[in-house]
Amino acid sequence: MDSYQQTTRTTLKRRPQRGAFDRPTVHAILDATFLCHVGFVVEGQPFVIPTSYGRDGDTLFIHGAAASRMLRELSTGIPVAVTVTLLDGLVLARSAFHHSLNYRSVVMLGTASLVEEPAEKMHALEVITEQIVPGRWAEVRRPDDQELKATTVLRLPIEEVSAKIRTGPPIDDDEDMKLPIWAGVLPLTVAPGSPIPDPQLAEGLPLPASVTAYQKIEGAK
Amino acid sequence: MDSYQQTTRTTLKRRPQRGAFDRPTVHAILDATFLCHVGFVVEGQPFVIPTSYGRDGDTLFIHGAAASRMLRELSTGIPVAVTVTLLDGLVLARSAFHHSLNYRSVVMLGTASLVEEPAEKMHALEVITEQIVPGRWAEVRRPDDQELKATTVLRLPIEEVSAKIRTGPPIDDDEDMKLPIWAGVLPLTVAPGSPIPDPQLAEGLPLPASVTAYQKIEGAK
Repeated sequence: MDSYQQTTRTTLKRRPQRGAFDRPTVHAILDATFLCHVGFVVEGQPFVIPTSYGRDGDTLFIHGAAASRMLRELSTGIPVAVTVTLLDGLVLARSAFHHSLNYRSVVMLGTASLVEEPAEKMHALEVITEQIVPGRWAEVRRPDDQELKATTVLRLPIEEVSAKIRTGPPIDDDEDMKLPIWAGVLPLTVAPGSPIPDPQLAEGLPLPASVTAYQKIEGAK
Repeated sequence: MDSYQQTTRTTLKRRPQRGAFDRPTVHAILDATFLCHVGFVVEGQPFVIPTSYGRDGDTLFIHGAAASRMLRELSTGIPVAVTVTLLDGLVLARSAFHHSLNYRSVVMLGTASLVEEPAEKMHALEVITEQIVPGRWAEVRRPDDQELKATTVLRLPIEEVSAKIRTGPPIDDDEDMKLPIWAGVLPLTVAPGSPIPDPQLAEGLPLPASVTAYQKIEGAK
């Protein structure tokens, strides 16, 4: 099926035209970055924690230290929300009221489960690493048994999910169109700067392909 | 007092040395962007929604359409979490295991309340607009009574709050230091692109000061 099932909880109450449920749109947003915000509830209090992720088909992997409180809570199967937001620009209207943001976001609802099988765990870590810096997995020392044990990996099915997108210019009221006020969009992108070598880096080691390729991605990530 | 009160819920269980509770650190992170992720619970399900905000002293303002479900839920005084994340760089270690991210984040817990008094509401909208694009408020048509009524504004006290920061190079295991693998940090910044004038913009209107100033902020926002 090419679209995710729309549910009451993922249906946009306002501006439904900004919503999308088709797989290509949802996947494109999830693949354009690696940072998500994870929401969960402990004793009635919501918490929202930023973390990195990797997507593999209809699965999202997140990971962290085995001692992480968030991962421990989530592994018990409590309800979770995962939100991914790409900020694309400032929408500057003639009126304060019609100012807005251009963005692409995905909101996922569901429950997480522990990845325990070592081969799948290793695969998940590769997926996460490759999502952050494509090509990096092949360059580095892979996790050993002890490191695998010290890492908790969770899988979240991409199932109850919606995308929301705003693009384009500001939309002012007709009577404001003649005001002598500049209106338009100021695009924002995340840009890589100059790599900073580790102070203890051995002399003469060139930049790896993963970093030089990353720099070439315009408006990368 | 120069620090926020540390509570059980805001105490970092792991790597407490990365936590900060002092006002200048928390405020500097909150002032460096305008996008937050708001967490709240409806019928046991957490939701995480991105939105813009403005800070005024020890208050955070958020706003939206009066019809917004999130704002309606929050205005009833349910527990809320607000998280602000600045992604500063990719930390590339010699081992996959020690890869990390450099970031600054703030997690706030509390409850929101409605801003109803029109003058305070107008002030809050100015604070939010100025946080997104400093100088813009003076350039645009201000909200009229009808627009004020169509806008819901909430205030959240900055009270139970913590900051978390990671900076610096990767930290590899001693036995990995001689591996011929490049390690270091790839900095990431949010950069403004070229302004895109509204297709209906009157001819000859120059870029406003708010936009030209924004472009000059290196690694802005």
